[in-house]
Amino acid sequence: MNPLVASSAGSTIRALHARRRPTSINLGIGEPTLMPDVAPFERATRWVAEHGCRYSTNAGDADLREAIAAHYAYPGLDHADNVCVTTGSQEAVYVAMKALLDPATDEMLLVEPAFPVYAKVAQIEGISLRRVTLGATDDFAFDAEQIVAALGPRTRLIVLCSPCNPTGRVISRAAVDRIVAVLAARGGPPVYVLHDEIYREQLYVDDMGEFGRRYPYTIAINSLSKSNALTGLRIGWVIGPADVMPEIVKMHGWVTSCASTFAQRVAFDVFEHDALGAQLSWYRGQRAAARDLAADAGLRFVDPDGAFYLCVEVGARDSLAFCNVLLDERDVVAVPGNIFAATLEGWIRTSFVAPPDTLREGLRRIAALAKQHVALP
Amino acid sequence: MNPLVASSAGSTIRALHARRRPTSINLGIGEPTLMPDVAPFERATRWVAEHGCRYSTNAGDADLREAIAAHYAYPGLDHADNVCVTTGSQEAVYVAMKALLDPATDEMLLVEPAFPVYAKVAQIEGISLRRVTLGATDDFAFDAEQIVAALGPRTRLIVLCSPCNPTGRVISRAAVDRIVAVLAARGGPPVYVLHDEIYREQLYVDDMGEFGRRYPYTIAINSLSKSNALTGLRIGWVIGPADVMPEIVKMHGWVTSCASTFAQRVAFDVFEHDALGAQLSWYRGQRAAARDLAADAGLRFVDPDGAFYLCVEVGARDSLAFCNVLLDERDVVAVPGNIFAATLEGWIRTSFVAPPDTLREGLRRIAALAKQHVALP
Repeated sequence: MNPLVASSAGSTIRALHARRRPTSINLGIGEPTLMPDVAPFERATRWVAEHGCRYSTNAGDADLREAIAAHYAYPGLDHADNVCVTTGSQEAVYVAMKALLDPATDEMLLVEPAFPVYAKVAQIEGISLRRVTLGATDDFAFDAEQIVAALGPRTRLIVLCSPCNPTGRVISRAAVDRIVAVLAARGGPPVYVLHDEIYREQLYVDDMGEFGRRYPYTIAINSLSKSNALTGLRIGWVIGPADVMPEIVKMHGWVTSCASTFAQRVAFDVFEHDALGAQLSWYRGQRAAARDLAADAGLRFVDPDGAFYLCVEVGARDSLAFCNVLLDERDVVAVPGNIFAATLEGWIRTSFVAPPDTLREGLRRIAALAKQHVALP
Repeated sequence: MNPLVASSAGSTIRALHARRRPTSINLGIGEPTLMPDVAPFERATRWVAEHGCRYSTNAGDADLREAIAAHYAYPGLDHADNVCVTTGSQEAVYVAMKALLDPATDEMLLVEPAFPVYAKVAQIEGISLRRVTLGATDDFAFDAEQIVAALGPRTRLIVLCSPCNPTGRVISRAAVDRIVAVLAARGGPPVYVLHDEIYREQLYVDDMGEFGRRYPYTIAINSLSKSNALTGLRIGWVIGPADVMPEIVKMHGWVTSCASTFAQRVAFDVFEHDALGAQLSWYRGQRAAARDLAADAGLRFVDPDGAFYLCVEVGARDSLAFCNVLLDERDVVAVPGNIFAATLEGWIRTSFVAPPDTLREGLRRIAALAKQHVALP
């Protein structure tokens, strides 16, 4: 057995979900509840009838890679060769971290609160991890000074997710510019920035910083999972500098050969019909409802700039224990904040993809349990 | 950069294919030319219209895993929990090797000739590799005595592909029994056998040894790619002992989360309609034609027990140089034998998925170049 794999813990989120009941109010969910548009599947099926379903090149179909590169149009990263299509953003993160970092010498700087996957992959791959943890004082805002102060001499990759899972905060243009300025002035081998942009189509503010727009050493990662309610399609992509893409594509080739040809046709269809932001207005409505409902319930929460999560303070000393009681006694699934960062201890992550009535009842039960919890000795 | 990734060479097969012309006779191809049945795609699309396209569990949908376990019915490996659905057999190989082996202490024994992927993954993961190389004397038959004699004290995994890519040879029941007897008598921690069965639906002999039938420490790997002309669907699976599957599923979760929900519906449909062997009679006809044509061309070849390859002796001192000349001067794509094993130097791998007329002309040109080559000083 591989001891790094064996010693890694499974997913707390999945373990909590496995315990839910048919009656449970599920605010723990990390995927859209909307239905996807089925028309791209119908057209992709007709394509298969005509062309079969054969391997694509390792990096993915050229037309899809061109469409992706053109859609984002990140300067210097805007050609098909800057794109590798992957099995969801999960594989994108895995192969990018794996190809870019030498576990013997390099260190990765993870900006927290963060979804646990980046730290898990680092652990399994034996990659040294340094954490910079944003705090509750400024509602977990991306603090450029705090991030650059955390850079170490061996840092070769900064990983951040904006819009952020779990906080919903979005990094500002000014913060991106400040980080880029420090990295550019640093000398030595480049420090790459892995910008996980998987929630960028659920955006509720104007000021969204994009590393790809400002920094040539950006590794931008995205997928159709959240934007188009296609978590189960497993299609994502890495956009990166031309000199590192061959290494990322090679690693991707040994891990999965290529992304599904069928799924690539669905994805091309989505880009061709400019349908990436098709569900945004629904999310805007949900976000407005969630804020009002949380305020009505008397809960402190982080105002989400993007994504579909509301981090709620519950005052518990142990978020996981709170979530277990919340599920067992109040029949509500939510995710403990401490799995994302030490500063989210005492908070929980709820998602606002449920219907407003369900959301209202869930938040009401959370507020009630939080009050009871605070009253305990 | 990760030096293990950076130092690994790209695919020779893909590099040769990239140089082919529109006029080229392609006998290098490693995937079916038949069209897949599109009905499972149509039914899976209707399923998505009704259910959406959401994450499955990491291991895959329970009904598909049950169908896979029941189809093979390997004793002790026949429950849904013995199955993990993956992004093609490539990911199956990757996550199984990664989860099972500790690079610090374990060694993998690779039975060659073999497709290069196993050795490449070992190299990238820093896994020590020992090779046992079958020879041309007995037409590359799986020699149980030779294989067990190659076991080392640190061997924890034997990897073999039967029906074999590239030779088409199939391991016999007697050879499996002999290997299993030696492993069972060995004592100490178990030696796992990764049996890559991806060509088992292209089988032309009665005596097919299956490790899953005889050995509780079998890791059986397969996919729909070759059996159902669905290389581009990217659906495969690992079947293994209950105690190691959680580690494999965990690794799979960090690499790709889960296999495509859509592709899993297509796969379930294939199992439900018992359509895995639907294209076998076509392959039988192709194999018969290929043998006759190769004999007519005066070529020595390995009689294929399975798969869709014909290994042909060309007498060249350098198979890769021969294949380059074959492409440049005769406009035929074939794969050099030396990428599969040192004993296949002087041989090339042709595939018999092209129409018989194309195959005839390709083999004729190969025979002509081989004669000219032998005549060289």
